[in-house]
Amino acid sequence: MNDNRIYGRNPVLALLQSGGRRTDEVAVLAGARGRLAEVVTLARRAGVKVSYRTRDQLTAMAGTPHHQGVVCRVAEKEYVALEDLLSMAAGRDEPAFFLALDQVQDPRNLGSLLRTAEAMGVHGIVLPRHHAAGLTASAAKTSVGALEFIAVARVTNLVASIEVMKKQGVWIYGTVPVGGVRTWEADLTRPLCLVLGGEEGGVRPLVAQNCDLLLTIPMPGRVGSLNVGAAGAALCYEALRQRFRKKYP
Amino acid sequence: MNDNRIYGRNPVLALLQSGGRRTDEVAVLAGARGRLAEVVTLARRAGVKVSYRTRDQLTAMAGTPHHQGVVCRVAEKEYVALEDLLSMAAGRDEPAFFLALDQVQDPRNLGSLLRTAEAMGVHGIVLPRHHAAGLTASAAKTSVGALEFIAVARVTNLVASIEVMKKQGVWIYGTVPVGGVRTWEADLTRPLCLVLGGEEGGVRPLVAQNCDLLLTIPMPGRVGSLNVGAAGAALCYEALRQRFRKKYP
Repeated sequence: MNDNRIYGRNPVLALLQSGGRRTDEVAVLAGARGRLAEVVTLARRAGVKVSYRTRDQLTAMAGTPHHQGVVCRVAEKEYVALEDLLSMAAGRDEPAFFLALDQVQDPRNLGSLLRTAEAMGVHGIVLPRHHAAGLTASAAKTSVGALEFIAVARVTNLVASIEVMKKQGVWIYGTVPVGGVRTWEADLTRPLCLVLGGEEGGVRPLVAQNCDLLLTIPMPGRVGSLNVGAAGAALCYEALRQRFRKKYP
Repeated sequence: MNDNRIYGRNPVLALLQSGGRRTDEVAVLAGARGRLAEVVTLARRAGVKVSYRTRDQLTAMAGTPHHQGVVCRVAEKEYVALEDLLSMAAGRDEPAFFLALDQVQDPRNLGSLLRTAEAMGVHGIVLPRHHAAGLTASAAKTSVGALEFIAVARVTNLVASIEVMKKQGVWIYGTVPVGGVRTWEADLTRPLCLVLGGEEGGVRPLVAQNCDLLLTIPMPGRVGSLNVGAAGAALCYEALRQRFRKKYP
């Protein structure tokens, strides 16, 4: 399938603003106003076909009623090669900052992590091909448009990709619920790939063995674990904080 | 209604371990093993009635198929009074640390925030009664048991509650997407209540006006906003980090 759907106001606005994907059609709820008018203006300016549909037609197109009155037919989000991700980061004037997701299986968690990562300045995402959520319409919706602004490399073998990154001078820091170095005691200002584990088992043992360092977010409470989205937010925040303080001491 | 449901393995284990609520019945999938055996042992030890059901019966009880083979009938989670929340925190040997949620409406976001807050050592939650998700079975499930370990005060008027907390020496720090003090430049080691806004409009203007300080998580990316769960994770993490570093310099 090379045809995909993006729905919801913010995801569609981000899609049209980014200009990153071929958009074949923007279908809008007939008679709608407000932010949807902005969508129509942007689509027309970009030369994209605009059509007007009923709510039921949009629901059928999106495969969900949560389309907020707008659904796009777009080319699939293109993954980049890991090597391209590395050279894109090398072109910036700051140390590389990647996020690798080991077996994150819920598309909503993936979407939320994409949003957090993009907002907090992560340069790119490394996503294994197997046992992991892909860049579905549901992930795109939860990312609230972030998917359009962040590069994603899909890799067959995360351990092999870790080796490639290491050879390029990127430090690989995995995360474990207990026993790792406290996040604020590790240096996250180096060229870095943070590795987050999935909802069920966390980072797999073979992946953890190949990390340069294992980090733990200290948790004084009783539940002793965080949702992968919350863990990702705390980790990306810590890297952002350290990098900012180093740049503007 | 004074009868409620808790479902899912971890939420039910937390419920039985905490002993905090009257549990009337633990219904388990007939023939199930593994972690469910632990549930049965704990329930019997606590003198709670255990019954065996089919998958469909459990789904009917839980109102969702995501029960993982176990559903409890329990008394509703009891809210505490704001004054009790304040005196509970005063009994600890560390500065108060509360989280107030202004119009968080998605029970899954609420559950995720409860989990993050409990894990990161928040002493209690302030939850407005209106225009906000309550402590439903869905919130309990997403909290993965954290709901059993954290005190929640439900208040009618958040602004009035802010005034009560201020009089008790608690600083009120709200959060805004732009224009606030950078999180890491504010002192989060004081007795503190962080105020997070809901999914749609953030912290309401009247609530923001009554805050002692407004905080912003700096975001270099293009999407410019975080999911409320991610924002809560970053903020609680920052408070945790500052408090730890102050205690163990």
